Amino acid sequence: MTIGIVGAGQLGRMLALAGYPLGFDFLFLDRSAATPAGQLAPILCGDMASPKLLARLARRSAVVTFDWENASVAGLKPIARLTRVFPPIEALAAAQDRLREKRLFEALGIPTTRFAAVASRKQLLAAIAQVGLPGVLKTRHGGYDGKGQFVIRGPRDIDRAWDALGALPCLYENLVPFDYEVSAIGVRGSDGATAFYPLNRNLHRGGILRLTRAPFGSTPLTRRANAALRRILDHFGYVGVLTIEFFVHRGRLIANEIAPRVHNSGHWTIEGAVTSQFENHIRAITGLPLGSTQARGHSAMINLIGTLPPRADLLARPGVHLHDYRKDPRPDRKLGHITLIADSAARRDSGARALLRRIDRETWVSFR
Amino acid sequence: MTIGIVGAGQLGRMLALAGYPLGFDFLFLDRSAATPAGQLAPILCGDMASPKLLARLARRSAVVTFDWENASVAGLKPIARLTRVFPPIEALAAAQDRLREKRLFEALGIPTTRFAAVASRKQLLAAIAQVGLPGVLKTRHGGYDGKGQFVIRGPRDIDRAWDALGALPCLYENLVPFDYEVSAIGVRGSDGATAFYPLNRNLHRGGILRLTRAPFGSTPLTRRANAALRRILDHFGYVGVLTIEFFVHRGRLIANEIAPRVHNSGHWTIEGAVTSQFENHIRAITGLPLGSTQARGHSAMINLIGTLPPRADLLARPGVHLHDYRKDPRPDRKLGHITLIADSAARRDSGARALLRRIDRETWVSFR
Repeated sequence: MTIGIVGAGQLGRMLALAGYPLGFDFLFLDRSAATPAGQLAPILCGDMASPKLLARLARRSAVVTFDWENASVAGLKPIARLTRVFPPIEALAAAQDRLREKRLFEALGIPTTRFAAVASRKQLLAAIAQVGLPGVLKTRHGGYDGKGQFVIRGPRDIDRAWDALGALPCLYENLVPFDYEVSAIGVRGSDGATAFYPLNRNLHRGGILRLTRAPFGSTPLTRRANAALRRILDHFGYVGVLTIEFFVHRGRLIANEIAPRVHNSGHWTIEGAVTSQFENHIRAITGLPLGSTQARGHSAMINLIGTLPPRADLLARPGVHLHDYRKDPRPDRKLGHITLIADSAARRDSGARALLRRIDRETWVSFR
Repeated sequence: MTIGIVGAGQLGRMLALAGYPLGFDFLFLDRSAATPAGQLAPILCGDMASPKLLARLARRSAVVTFDWENASVAGLKPIARLTRVFPPIEALAAAQDRLREKRLFEALGIPTTRFAAVASRKQLLAAIAQVGLPGVLKTRHGGYDGKGQFVIRGPRDIDRAWDALGALPCLYENLVPFDYEVSAIGVRGSDGATAFYPLNRNLHRGGILRLTRAPFGSTPLTRRANAALRRILDHFGYVGVLTIEFFVHRGRLIANEIAPRVHNSGHWTIEGAVTSQFENHIRAITGLPLGSTQARGHSAMINLIGTLPPRADLLARPGVHLHDYRKDPRPDRKLGHITLIADSAARRDSGARALLRRIDRETWVSFR
C-alpha cells in the first residue's frame, strides 16, 4: 500500500521513516528530488499544484496526505475523487487563511485574539480602532515562521505596515501579552478515536521555533487545550495529526493558529513518546488503530538552524538523538533537530541549556 | 557520506532506517532490488561476491559493512584496499567457520562446548569417542537458523548424520544440557571504546529465534558475558556490533556462536534502548561516539514467521511496535517482528504471552 505525500520536506521524510516499519510504501510530489524525503523514497518532480502530477500521485496512492501547509487546496480537491485525501482539505483550507482560522476558533468557542479583516487602508484604521494597539497586521495567506507579519505599536507604524503587506488580503489582531507559548498535538483516527500528546512548551526567536520541552503543564491546562483540539478535530471529521499553537497569559490559553499536520513542536515524540506523531499520522490516515501518545521521560527538542554543528560533538552527549534533514545550509533554515531525553525535567533543562549554549547562544540567553 | 552494505535484508533495512536521521546515505549490494532494504535505498543488483560489483560498491562508499553473515570473505578482502571495511573481515571469517569460532573461544578462555574437527567418517567416530554422546554434527560453513546440523543421540544416528552432512567439512560437539539461552550484544567504536547492551534471554523453536526478552539476568552473569564480548572485540580490533550466543547451564555460560553484526535478538533495542544496535553499528563504523546502550523499560521481541498477522490486530495492543520487512510470505521465513515495551518484567511477560498465544501457539506452549 502506497502513501502519497505532497511535499518532500523534513516532515515527509520523518513520516516515511515512521511508516516504513509499518510496511508502507511512499511516493512524494515535490519540485525537486534533492529534498529531505527524496533521499529515501521515490518522488514525482514538478509543480506541486499541477493537476496532472497530483492526479498521477493519487492514482498511485491508496491515500494522499501533505507535509506542507501550503499544499494547493484547489489542486487537491479534484484528486479526492481518485483516492482518499487526509487530513480533510477543508481543514487545510482553514489553516491557510488566518481569517477563516480565527473565525473557526470563534465559532467553536475557543478563546483567541481579537481580530478584524483588513482589505483596505480604511479597514486597517477601523480595525485598529476596534481591536486596539498594539496589534499585528498579518497577511491572510502564505506566512510561516514569522513571515508576512508586521507589528503595529503606534500610529507611526501604520503606513509602514500597510506598505509592507497591504497589497494582500490581511487581518489585524491585537498583540497579546503572554507569559509563554504552548502547542497541543492531537490525532484522530478514521473511526473517530482521538489521542492527545502531552503539552509542549515552545520558545521562538525571530519567529522560528528554537526549543520545545515536553511534557509540560498542569492537568487543567492540558485538559483545556485538548478540549479545544477535540472540538476542531470533530468539527472537520478530521483524520490525522493536528496541532494548535497557544499563547498562555496568566494561565489562560489563547489560540494562535492551527497546523493540519505533524508539527515541529512534536518532533520530540520520535524518541520521547510511545508512538511518535509521525507514526500516529500514518496510522490514522491508513485506518490503523492509534498508538499511545504517552511520554517516555522528559524531552527537549532543539532545532538546528542555519548550520549543523559537528555530528560527533552532538552525539557525544548522553541522551542526545540527531535528526539531520540533509538540507543545504542557509541562514534561518531548519536543517535538523536534536532531541534530548532525561529522566527528570530538571536534568532535561540543564542538558538543554548546555546544548543551547553551544549551538544557539541567542536562544540560550532567553532560556537561562 | 555513503555507507555501503553487502546484503539488503531486514538487517540492512533497519541499519538504513537508523542511519538516515544521522545524515548518511546508503548503497546496498544484493541479488535483487525486491529486498527489504531495496525499498528505501539505492541498490546494486547482482552476485554479492562479484569482485566488480564489490569494487563498485567500495568506490561509492566511505565505509562498507555487511548485513549478512555469509558475505564473501574472499570478495571483501580486495576492496579493503579501496575503502574501509567494518567489522574486520577476520571476524567475519571466524564467524563463517564453526571450527575457527570454537578455537577462538578456546584461545580466549571463553567456555564453550567440547568439540573436534570432522573431515571423514573415521574422524567422526573418533570425535564421538572423544567428545561423547549425545552430540551434534555440524557443517563448518554455511548453516544458519538450525540448518546444517544433525543431532547424534546414539550409534544408530551416526550413519544418518554422516549421510546428511558428511560431504562437507564438519565439526562434532557435545550436546550441552542447558536451562535457557542468552545472547550478549556489544559494540566497539573505531577509538576502541566499548558499550554493552543488557543481556537477552532467547527462546528458539525449530532452530529459529521466536522470542527475546531484555533486560535479563543477574549482574554477575552479565559481567561474565560482557567480559567474553570484550575479549573478542579487542582480539579483532573490532569496529561495529558483535553478538555472542550462549547456553546457560546451572548459571554457567557456554558460548555457542558469534555473529559479527547486528543480531535478531537485539531488535528490541530500536524502542527498548536509548540507542539501538543499528544506530550504534552505524555510529561505530563511521567513527562517531557510541550511544548509550541502556534499556528503556522491559522489552519483548517476537519474530513474525511465515505469515504476518493483520497489522491492525497487532497495533491495537498498547505498547506494541511493528516492523514489517516487506518480504513475501514463505514458511519459516522471518517476515517481521514486533516489540512490546512494558514498565515491568511481569507486565512484559504477560503481554508477550498474550501475543504469542495469538500469533505463535507453538512458542506460546513453551513459554507458558
